[in-house]
Amino acid sequence: MNEHDPFIRLSHKLAESAAANGNHPFGALLVKDGAVLLTALNTVHTSHDVTAHAELNLVRQASGMYSADFLADCCLYTSTEPCAMCTGGIVWSGIGHIVYSCPAALLGEITGSGRFVVPCRDLLKYASRPLTVTGPILPDDAAALHRRYWPTYSHTGIL
Amino acid sequence: MNEHDPFIRLSHKLAESAAANGNHPFGALLVKDGAVLLTALNTVHTSHDVTAHAELNLVRQASGMYSADFLADCCLYTSTEPCAMCTGGIVWSGIGHIVYSCPAALLGEITGSGRFVVPCRDLLKYASRPLTVTGPILPDDAAALHRRYWPTYSHTGIL
Repeated sequence: MNEHDPFIRLSHKLAESAAANGNHPFGALLVKDGAVLLTALNTVHTSHDVTAHAELNLVRQASGMYSADFLADCCLYTSTEPCAMCTGGIVWSGIGHIVYSCPAALLGEITGSGRFVVPCRDLLKYASRPLTVTGPILPDDAAALHRRYWPTYSHTGIL
Repeated sequence: MNEHDPFIRLSHKLAESAAANGNHPFGALLVKDGAVLLTALNTVHTSHDVTAHAELNLVRQASGMYSADFLADCCLYTSTEPCAMCTGGIVWSGIGHIVYSCPAALLGEITGSGRFVVPCRDLLKYASRPLTVTGPILPDDAAALHRRYWPTYSHTGIL
């Protein structure tokens, strides 16, 4: 077990909560100095908003509560590697560290859609400020979660 | 004058409204068959939300009101080339066409930050669905707008 495992396991629990609420199984949390400051779920379906991914919901909360300087020392944990939209939001927020569980490419394989798989490290090459990325962490657990969920999900074409 | 000019000029007016409200000068609108369906302004400062770019505010509205199939025939006009976050949101929404005025690289030069300049066409290479991009349209007008605004703006480091 490494230092990230407990927080990644919590992101999996949040992803399960999102699915139980009728949304896609994605969860994220913000951590500083070992303490969980914020959590967020995917709410795309229930809020009728394609931008309501877990990570972007977290960034919205975080940027309303904390300065970019504060967020530079925070870590965003997410159950699945952030998409391009969410990675962009994370850059603008000032958050300094991303830790993810399921790789985006693996999610694409599992859902069978894979229509916009952007490795977040590739996108972050455009950012001029330092942003650390760690992952995948416990990807098998995250993949198992996705494999339980997606076959029963009626595809709308929107992740 | 081409077919896009009137809508791009409206995006400039919306950008000026955003600045008048105390936000960054960015505006966007959604058009279908020559009719304006929705407009949106940047509200990053007034809503204390770094994700509240004009284009993402527009996508949020649009995805709550229209299906992805309907949005495939819509065009998003924006006063400045969408950032990676907004381009990602546009992909998820299903919107079929982006028309922009000021290139992202030119905005980066004008603001002097240029800390996350991602040409939207580069990012859209990852998308498996077709999405048309047109621009820059009337970039000199948009650049003039930015040149009026940014020298008077007290930088927070957040665009």
